[in-house]
Amino acid sequence: MRYPERLLKLVRALAGLPGVGPKSAQKLGLYLVQNPDASAELLSSLQAAQALHPCPVCGNLAEDELCPICADPERDRTVICVVETISDLMAIERSGEYSGLYHVLGGALNPLEGIGPEQLYLEKLFARLEGVNEVILATGMTVEGEATAGYLAERLSQHNIRPTRLAYGLPVGGSLEYADEVTLARALENRRGYL
Amino acid sequence: MRYPERLLKLVRALAGLPGVGPKSAQKLGLYLVQNPDASAELLSSLQAAQALHPCPVCGNLAEDELCPICADPERDRTVICVVETISDLMAIERSGEYSGLYHVLGGALNPLEGIGPEQLYLEKLFARLEGVNEVILATGMTVEGEATAGYLAERLSQHNIRPTRLAYGLPVGGSLEYADEVTLARALENRRGYL
Repeated sequence: MRYPERLLKLVRALAGLPGVGPKSAQKLGLYLVQNPDASAELLSSLQAAQALHPCPVCGNLAEDELCPICADPERDRTVICVVETISDLMAIERSGEYSGLYHVLGGALNPLEGIGPEQLYLEKLFARLEGVNEVILATGMTVEGEATAGYLAERLSQHNIRPTRLAYGLPVGGSLEYADEVTLARALENRRGYL
Repeated sequence: MRYPERLLKLVRALAGLPGVGPKSAQKLGLYLVQNPDASAELLSSLQAAQALHPCPVCGNLAEDELCPICADPERDRTVICVVETISDLMAIERSGEYSGLYHVLGGALNPLEGIGPEQLYLEKLFARLEGVNEVILATGMTVEGEATAGYLAERLSQHNIRPTRLAYGLPVGGSLEYADEVTLARALENRRGYL
């Protein structure tokens, strides 16, 4: 069985992506080499996306100096919503219920995997608290997410901020990324004092 | 909801690929912008794949002048296996049962969709028949595949070639691309005279 080397390389690159199995990778690879328009569009958007970088304020994706949310003058600067990942930020944006700022940790505390506070984008949060009335802890309802919320609540209380936590409208043990918009909106609406 | 424009473009390009839904496209897009290595690998392999072109002899993908199969001196040049697509060619290669050459039509006859013999890579087949003892009709077991096989058999008989057809070990109405290796090997083994 001899395939062109360039096709094999493309299929291997595709098969390395999350959720893409070997059969889908081959199907996608063949589609791309046989559809120059789709291939060119993906190529140019990948090149353009290389200019994306973490927002130095909140850790969200930015193409200009700040991310679109930090740069938006309409967002409420007195509230910061702390999330684990950019996917979680996007899930909350989709709920349409939130107009404040974000802080993206880049994960959750997980001592077993060696993820402590130093491995997260966390210290910068405490430099952002001037003029902030509320910090919403929107880490996942998982063991790691709860541990992270607990840690943050403790640290925030030293800055005289009593954080709130998303309501348990979310299924326990679930991840924010896959929650539906209505559930997330409900959870934001019913957020409660944490400590 | 404001996402970086470059991320939106990437997600749109991904969502245009076959079998990639909006949620997977977002997941893949976020993965790519957050994993520069995966993104660079996909980028360079896409660029390299742009040099792939149809083999002028058989219609398979080629990176050099001829495709790897036409260029291989070990392949049996007295047999040509006619398939609809490159995916079908690859499915037969995976069966490990075939060592001859191919001819890739680029589809099947489908008058309702305006695909006649002129729309397929078909006439070149008749210029390749010198020294060929057998033409295997490996178009799909679908209505269009059977019609194409019938048309080719008629044309080939004018060149004094009695083609063979894959055995009906394949599920009727199914497409070659998803057949398992063993079924395909069996079907090749039991190929029979067509006219």
